[in-house]
Amino acid sequence: MGEARVAVLDAIRARRSVRKYRDESLNDEDLRAILEAGRWAPSGLNNQPWRFAVVRDTKVKDEIAEQTRYGEIIRGAPVIIAVFMDNEVSYDRVKDCQSIGACLQNMWLAVHALGLGGVWIGEILKNKDKVADILTAPETYELMAILAVGYPQHRKQKSHRKSVSELIFKEL
Amino acid sequence: MGEARVAVLDAIRARRSVRKYRDESLNDEDLRAILEAGRWAPSGLNNQPWRFAVVRDTKVKDEIAEQTRYGEIIRGAPVIIAVFMDNEVSYDRVKDCQSIGACLQNMWLAVHALGLGGVWIGEILKNKDKVADILTAPETYELMAILAVGYPQHRKQKSHRKSVSELIFKEL
Repeated sequence: MGEARVAVLDAIRARRSVRKYRDESLNDEDLRAILEAGRWAPSGLNNQPWRFAVVRDTKVKDEIAEQTRYGEIIRGAPVIIAVFMDNEVSYDRVKDCQSIGACLQNMWLAVHALGLGGVWIGEILKNKDKVADILTAPETYELMAILAVGYPQHRKQKSHRKSVSELIFKEL
Repeated sequence: MGEARVAVLDAIRARRSVRKYRDESLNDEDLRAILEAGRWAPSGLNNQPWRFAVVRDTKVKDEIAEQTRYGEIIRGAPVIIAVFMDNEVSYDRVKDCQSIGACLQNMWLAVHALGLGGVWIGEILKNKDKVADILTAPETYELMAILAVGYPQHRKQKSHRKSVSELIFKEL
């Protein structure tokens, strides 16, 4: 348990956005491990509202890249995972968005644990309907985020957070 | 990397809801490690919308327990972490709820990695304003979920998920 404990807490602490990738395609085993992590997220009533589109195809990736100012990241990533919510199984907007967040975080932690790098792109939601069209997603599917994944060019990224004591407003 | 990889993917896969706890208080170091995991969640514009109330006090815990049909879980847990969104720093409802979900998942994975057990209670949101009143939360804080944490009585819980192939609607 000791080492597992350290590994999990470290992954949570050390995961960073990686926006530049080496020109190398992702192997299928790693991709499956990432999606596997996503599917084990918790959800209210275990409704599992997440649905995935996996895109390696350059032409389709380019079309999707047009829909965000972070297009360069998408073009540079060997694979992107578009995460949708199926509104047909959604039962509570707030809770289902939280579940999607848990699913994305699971996948991102898996990306990190696998020695890969990724970034969660939310800005593209401004064009979520266009992305759904490009991917000919079912009518009830709504884009929630795109996760770009690849082999990191570097891991120099730093980040900061408020301290725990700033976040606790009450302790009883 | 090999072992860390296994540890993280295992934690994601093996984490289960734990609803019954031993009658033992949680040590402060473990509690801090859980909150530490939560604070390192990603958020859009790094706005870190999560805020925490930590409750060990039996009387307050009982009052909160009245607000959900899962009150018994809350009464039986040595500590609960009420997670709020600060609507003053929120910039996008969908993305901020996703970030809260990532924060909750980080904490839940930490709980598991620490050998503890926990459960994410969302049903209590039906009385979110009453819980906010009990905790005298600032006006802009909105309850998002409660995480109950303790030493598990057992770990027999099973769960199931759709297969990855059921979740991928497109692969290009």
